[in-house]
Amino acid sequence: MRIARILTPTGPQHAVADGDSWAFIEDVFATPLVRTGEAVPIEGTALLAPVQPRDILGLGHNLTNNDHPLPMQAWHKSVHTLANPGDAIVARRGVGTVNIEGELAVVIGTRAEALTLENAFDAVLGFTIVNDVTNVDQVPIDEKSFQSKGGENYTPLGPWIETELADPENVSTTVEINGEVRAESGSFNLPSSVAATLVYVTQWLTLYPGDVVMTGAPNTFVAVNPGDRVDITLAGIGTLTNTVV
Amino acid sequence: MRIARILTPTGPQHAVADGDSWAFIEDVFATPLVRTGEAVPIEGTALLAPVQPRDILGLGHNLTNNDHPLPMQAWHKSVHTLANPGDAIVARRGVGTVNIEGELAVVIGTRAEALTLENAFDAVLGFTIVNDVTNVDQVPIDEKSFQSKGGENYTPLGPWIETELADPENVSTTVEINGEVRAESGSFNLPSSVAATLVYVTQWLTLYPGDVVMTGAPNTFVAVNPGDRVDITLAGIGTLTNTVV
Repeated sequence: MRIARILTPTGPQHAVADGDSWAFIEDVFATPLVRTGEAVPIEGTALLAPVQPRDILGLGHNLTNNDHPLPMQAWHKSVHTLANPGDAIVARRGVGTVNIEGELAVVIGTRAEALTLENAFDAVLGFTIVNDVTNVDQVPIDEKSFQSKGGENYTPLGPWIETELADPENVSTTVEINGEVRAESGSFNLPSSVAATLVYVTQWLTLYPGDVVMTGAPNTFVAVNPGDRVDITLAGIGTLTNTVV
Repeated sequence: MRIARILTPTGPQHAVADGDSWAFIEDVFATPLVRTGEAVPIEGTALLAPVQPRDILGLGHNLTNNDHPLPMQAWHKSVHTLANPGDAIVARRGVGTVNIEGELAVVIGTRAEALTLENAFDAVLGFTIVNDVTNVDQVPIDEKSFQSKGGENYTPLGPWIETELADPENVSTTVEINGEVRAESGSFNLPSSVAATLVYVTQWLTLYPGDVVMTGAPNTFVAVNPGDRVDITLAGIGTLTNTVV
């Protein structure tokens, strides 16, 4: 099932895909989901980032194909950097190269404390796509992932949450810049599995519904420039598209 | 002026100190502040963390007296760790020593982008006290300040916001454990000034009303154990008290 978030006259509201319509629901974290009875056509409806996390976690040292030079390390990205599908990424000038990073994002559904490899996905509402935009030339002088990760619309998220992804550990990822394929990889190339990442993070910090864990960029990073269009496609989820200005 | 946050039957509400009363106000970020006309006695009223930040920033390498071994580096602390005055800090067991850190906290009042040394305090609503509780033995293997900073009630904040602090760069700090003075220092000992910290942070990340910047612990960290009572007193603000369990 796909769950999106849509701006309505009374504020943002979640909706589930139902044929040609987005059918609005009450509480996205409720079980079962309750429909309000109202709907809008999928065609032509703009989508917001599908959730408003209180914490966004990134994973350090989870970047290269199956290579784990250092133990996994999480860090927080500012919630102020969250952006919607279609929003313009404001690439910082004068701080070196700006990379986009196409990643599988986990959306937490229930309070998640000390998860295990066996139950890690029980706490998950679903999966979406995140673009972890990075001032990559800051990384060598930014071991705390602050300078490299701050910028306007530096965390596009969406376009929707897929609640029935077949296998989160085997999600193919394609990054296109201006329609040209520039990176092909997938979560199967992450040094730490998605489940192991959730175990590590919740060992140290209890997560809550709506929190987002960015699982790492398995060679899915590409330098971009103003004017570029970025399409990140994850098999079984969809495509997150943003432009760079 | 002191601004507190108080739990009422209709939810948390801000209030200003007025003689023996907390006088409730509408929007804490409005200018001028508008009183609702209702009030509660200061005596006996429990206070919440005086603000609910969307981002909590900490400052790395701003720990020792006037010593700056490495450039300043900010990091994010989870908003899930926020705690009220009086809340019990749940010291993690089995991960080494747990330190409390008594710090001056800046509460942002207006959108703050690329502040300068001249206008840094214009964006500030006021100042309060923060206890940046830390799993200190994790620090050497946690360059991203994640494992060392995650825990239940690891960020007590309060007891109130002081909007008229005479000189933020000269705030004496005293840490007492079980009534015994264990650290005496102040913001005058911070390697980077409070203004310089705000300039650095907002150069990379735009802050918004309610965000909190923890300015660093100038030798105001003390190891604690379950049962300890922690009093952090900042001259011109007040005392933040929590127990460790």
